Amino acid sequence: MTDRTVPRTVEWIGDLDGHVSMIDQTKLSTELCMIECHDVESIHDAISKLKIRGAPAIGIAAAMGVVLGIRHYTGSDRAEFLEDLDNVCDYLAASRPTAVNLTWALDRMRRCARSSGQADISQLKVTLLEEAKRIRDEDAAMCRAIGRHGESLIKAGCGVLTHCNAGGLATSEYGTALAPLYTAHESGVPFRAYADETRPVLQGSRLTAWELQQAGIDVTLLCDNMAGSLMKDGKVDLAITGADRIAANGDVANKIGTYSLAVLSQAHSIPFYVAAPSSTFDLSVADGSQIPIEHRSPDEIRRGFGTLTAPANVPCYSPAFDVTPARLVTGIITERGMICPVDIDTIAAIIRSDTSGQDT
Amino acid sequence: MTDRTVPRTVEWIGDLDGHVSMIDQTKLSTELCMIECHDVESIHDAISKLKIRGAPAIGIAAAMGVVLGIRHYTGSDRAEFLEDLDNVCDYLAASRPTAVNLTWALDRMRRCARSSGQADISQLKVTLLEEAKRIRDEDAAMCRAIGRHGESLIKAGCGVLTHCNAGGLATSEYGTALAPLYTAHESGVPFRAYADETRPVLQGSRLTAWELQQAGIDVTLLCDNMAGSLMKDGKVDLAITGADRIAANGDVANKIGTYSLAVLSQAHSIPFYVAAPSSTFDLSVADGSQIPIEHRSPDEIRRGFGTLTAPANVPCYSPAFDVTPARLVTGIITERGMICPVDIDTIAAIIRSDTSGQDT
Repeated sequence: MTDRTVPRTVEWIGDLDGHVSMIDQTKLSTELCMIECHDVESIHDAISKLKIRGAPAIGIAAAMGVVLGIRHYTGSDRAEFLEDLDNVCDYLAASRPTAVNLTWALDRMRRCARSSGQADISQLKVTLLEEAKRIRDEDAAMCRAIGRHGESLIKAGCGVLTHCNAGGLATSEYGTALAPLYTAHESGVPFRAYADETRPVLQGSRLTAWELQQAGIDVTLLCDNMAGSLMKDGKVDLAITGADRIAANGDVANKIGTYSLAVLSQAHSIPFYVAAPSSTFDLSVADGSQIPIEHRSPDEIRRGFGTLTAPANVPCYSPAFDVTPARLVTGIITERGMICPVDIDTIAAIIRSDTSGQDT
Repeated sequence: MTDRTVPRTVEWIGDLDGHVSMIDQTKLSTELCMIECHDVESIHDAISKLKIRGAPAIGIAAAMGVVLGIRHYTGSDRAEFLEDLDNVCDYLAASRPTAVNLTWALDRMRRCARSSGQADISQLKVTLLEEAKRIRDEDAAMCRAIGRHGESLIKAGCGVLTHCNAGGLATSEYGTALAPLYTAHESGVPFRAYADETRPVLQGSRLTAWELQQAGIDVTLLCDNMAGSLMKDGKVDLAITGADRIAANGDVANKIGTYSLAVLSQAHSIPFYVAAPSSTFDLSVADGSQIPIEHRSPDEIRRGFGTLTAPANVPCYSPAFDVTPARLVTGIITERGMICPVDIDTIAAIIRSDTSGQDT
């Protein structure tokens, strides 16, 4: 986020004796509370209770959690130290079992320890802290690169609609979908952002509206069903969302409602962009039909505001994600550049089939 | 509603000494509470506090409220009685000043009293009660006629998506958009209904899901942003919504989100129908661009149901209605028959330019 009066989503404070400080996202947008984690248990708790969410942010928190978990090792046995480290990683991996970024970050910490030639345990601890910080810095750099590649889409006076939260709160700093907005704002380009509230969990109203407002960006909130009317009113010049997974042909799985937004964008001749790091591409998946879609608890809809707002036993249709076909996506903004047109050849050329994992 | 274990939305109980019984819609879907109104003040209170809503239901309640307001007149002076009646009507008219159906029903009660030749006040009171019941019966008949004209659209095994609440709770009995569903259900046609929750006020989850479930209809609730995904999943065979106002060319103003649904329907080649009485047509309005759209308080979005779920001061885009162009509407189901194709000539032929007001 460009206004640095707002703390970072997740940050290491101090040296090896320091701690992890993170924004409690379950309290947003009504309260800005920091959680100060001095041990691995509190990191586990924060991840499992969704106090920190967003794949990159979870990965960074977990990597820093590894350091908290092994820094008090007092022995001098390298094998024992590595065994302790594995236990810490296994413990953290269980905090949110389905988060691929979590496993990826923990594996990177394990590899770092093993590939280090240092016999000195105290030096190895410092190396691990540096690796955790490097994961954060690489994420920040990746988001900034997405911002640079997408910045030119945002012209002075335009309206930009986004959905869910693929912002600084999901990453270390700039976010993915919001990175072009932050970059344009830093460059002094005046524009208006529109944030879908994003039912059922309201990431748009609780997180995106909050972080854009904190950064001093002119943001207006709307209910998801108002996006069509907003477009018809001529207020939207482009839409940008994030992505959870992108197939080899460019089909995009993202937060439920993204597909509706893409259809509405096409009907109004509004460009629809997806911003995502190259690690989001899963080239082993030919198209979106092969991406499994998680269905959520009906009570996220029926009790969305903490209050029962529907018959207690009414069945609900509640997919967490939907798939937007590549033909509706104008371009995909990655840290390596813009993929446009969105097709298998352009994707292959930019992403390359040998790319896998997040360390790209 | 077809299951008569559920009380009617608004009903007169007993004879002239009786009272008005209505469902408290502010308590739905969590509680089914009846309000028993024995005086005109409690009718005024129910209308002004939205305990009863939906244009036809408000009109019926007001007409019955007139009877409650004048039945204790003990004099024998006809002119004085009519003056009292006017005062009661004026009092009720102020309960929700912008509701056109309210004024229309009250004017009809005034006309009924004046056009009656009866000098006997006690007989005149009975005539007025009959008129109020007639308004209810005509509404019920109109809704049933819409049901008959729309019933054939609902084939065995199909999925029907609706938005907001244009059901029995908005009228005396069957509703408008939901009338074809009730009629098909009575005829034993198996189908599945889908109800958009309809943010920000959640009429879909609180009212539509409730009343369909009460009637024994298989209903599934979804968030508004899930409609596109539901259509893509092949679950929707047709969409039906109500209308607040229809222009001479067939452009339809209805609850916000209707337009998005119509665009999504077209993109999936799903027929999109509007069900509305002929009184909803405003032939003095050439097209939808001339229909003024009310914008609602930002707190309806920011504070959902009492809980703050967004930055307290974030600006909101919150139109109460949107306009769906006639080209996206497959047909309009009225009590006089189906308008299809939706164009100025077909509308003129069925609605006729000399039609105005609700007493058609």
